[in-house]
Amino acid sequence: MKTLKIIKIGGNIIDNEDALQQFLKEFSTINGPKILVHGGGKLATKLAQQMQVEVKMIDGRRVTDADTLDIITMVYAGKINKNIVAQLQSHQCNAIGFSGADGNTIVSDLRPSKPINYGFAGDVKKVNTETLEVLLNNKVTPVFCAITHDQNGQLLNTNADTIASELAIGFASIYNTELYYCFEKNGVLENVDDDHSVIENINTETYKTLVEDKVIFEGMLPKLNNCFYAINNQVQKVCIGKSEMLFHKNNKHTTITK
Amino acid sequence: MKTLKIIKIGGNIIDNEDALQQFLKEFSTINGPKILVHGGGKLATKLAQQMQVEVKMIDGRRVTDADTLDIITMVYAGKINKNIVAQLQSHQCNAIGFSGADGNTIVSDLRPSKPINYGFAGDVKKVNTETLEVLLNNKVTPVFCAITHDQNGQLLNTNADTIASELAIGFASIYNTELYYCFEKNGVLENVDDDHSVIENINTETYKTLVEDKVIFEGMLPKLNNCFYAINNQVQKVCIGKSEMLFHKNNKHTTITK
Repeated sequence: MKTLKIIKIGGNIIDNEDALQQFLKEFSTINGPKILVHGGGKLATKLAQQMQVEVKMIDGRRVTDADTLDIITMVYAGKINKNIVAQLQSHQCNAIGFSGADGNTIVSDLRPSKPINYGFAGDVKKVNTETLEVLLNNKVTPVFCAITHDQNGQLLNTNADTIASELAIGFASIYNTELYYCFEKNGVLENVDDDHSVIENINTETYKTLVEDKVIFEGMLPKLNNCFYAINNQVQKVCIGKSEMLFHKNNKHTTITK
Repeated sequence: MKTLKIIKIGGNIIDNEDALQQFLKEFSTINGPKILVHGGGKLATKLAQQMQVEVKMIDGRRVTDADTLDIITMVYAGKINKNIVAQLQSHQCNAIGFSGADGNTIVSDLRPSKPINYGFAGDVKKVNTETLEVLLNNKVTPVFCAITHDQNGQLLNTNADTIASELAIGFASIYNTELYYCFEKNGVLENVDDDHSVIENINTETYKTLVEDKVIFEGMLPKLNNCFYAINNQVQKVCIGKSEMLFHKNNKHTTITK
């Protein structure tokens, strides 16, 4: 089986023009089929403020009313996605931007409004790989923003980490699939203040202990749940760390195993 | 040869939610390969006002500074394009949104800054059909917004009518290509105030006379130049009129011939 790399980047790269340029240049050098998934960074919040649309977050997750959905569609699928695609093209990486609506690639259900009403937020129901496979076979690199649809014409705000894990699982029967979560730290850390304290391997057993001992908490919990969800559903390799882990072999990072 | 329909819609459909819904529903029923090209409508101007970015037009064309380019990328490639794609998916039309950067499909040159500096405006240099052909063969419907790129990472604002004619010409050697410009009138009119005064056929000869007699003027001139550019470059059929011309056989419209 061929290897497919699915790489998710977040705000630390997207919000920094130089970091993004450098990352995209290096990303373009990755041989073989690859998919990029990007979050939204701070730009959506900035635009909401400019447009005087209230930003409402609950437990670190954005509440997506109709105005906010317009804003994230403009920022994620418009400004960020198209600029990434144009930059990749300048490095001879033949990218095409996707939301989950494009090619009907990712179908979501509107998240139930109870216990918390997150508005137009989507929980992934199904990944359709057919069109993406055709494109990957033609050396096209899909670039996903964090928006899906419900197949009834409604766009839905969807967590980018989840999109990455769902895509990886969707392709796991066709490719040897590797999932990389790039963020601002070297990996999962023993001590959150010491970027050298990387825990290089976490498995189901040690994860339990790390959660019990509160070494892993808050925002890292959903990220790691996505990792274990992927590794337990035929994804071959799941890593968390700085994007450098992709390009420099000696770069320490965290690998998730069963 | 198979027939490919390339259909361009403008502000009169995009700015009216009901008209857009109705159009997309009918568009989805068109059998065979098809490409939709959409303009931007009034939403970009509205957003610019909300963001207090000055809107500058010269001869009906937008001057695109960096802030304006961000706005049109957000509105055209984000909000409008993704909502069209999601609605088409709800009608079982497997759409994928495109800018010219996606798949390197439309490459432009930055328009020279003299005699008039239009900022980040692009003049189409090359259409690459390969990736689009693969998708059309897989029953995917590309949906183009009016943005292209220069292959050096720069997005460029590009006239939607031109994108439609360039796509039609690009495909003319592979498909029997038909180009439809949908706008708010029944076609080119003898009397601009009488929507029943449709000139049903215009050829190169009669076009000259109509321009000399000032029956055709202002905004219709570039539109008709795009039409003749297409019909003189192997496009099989070029029509102008209300979108109803696509769905109702008796709907009067203007056909352009050599």
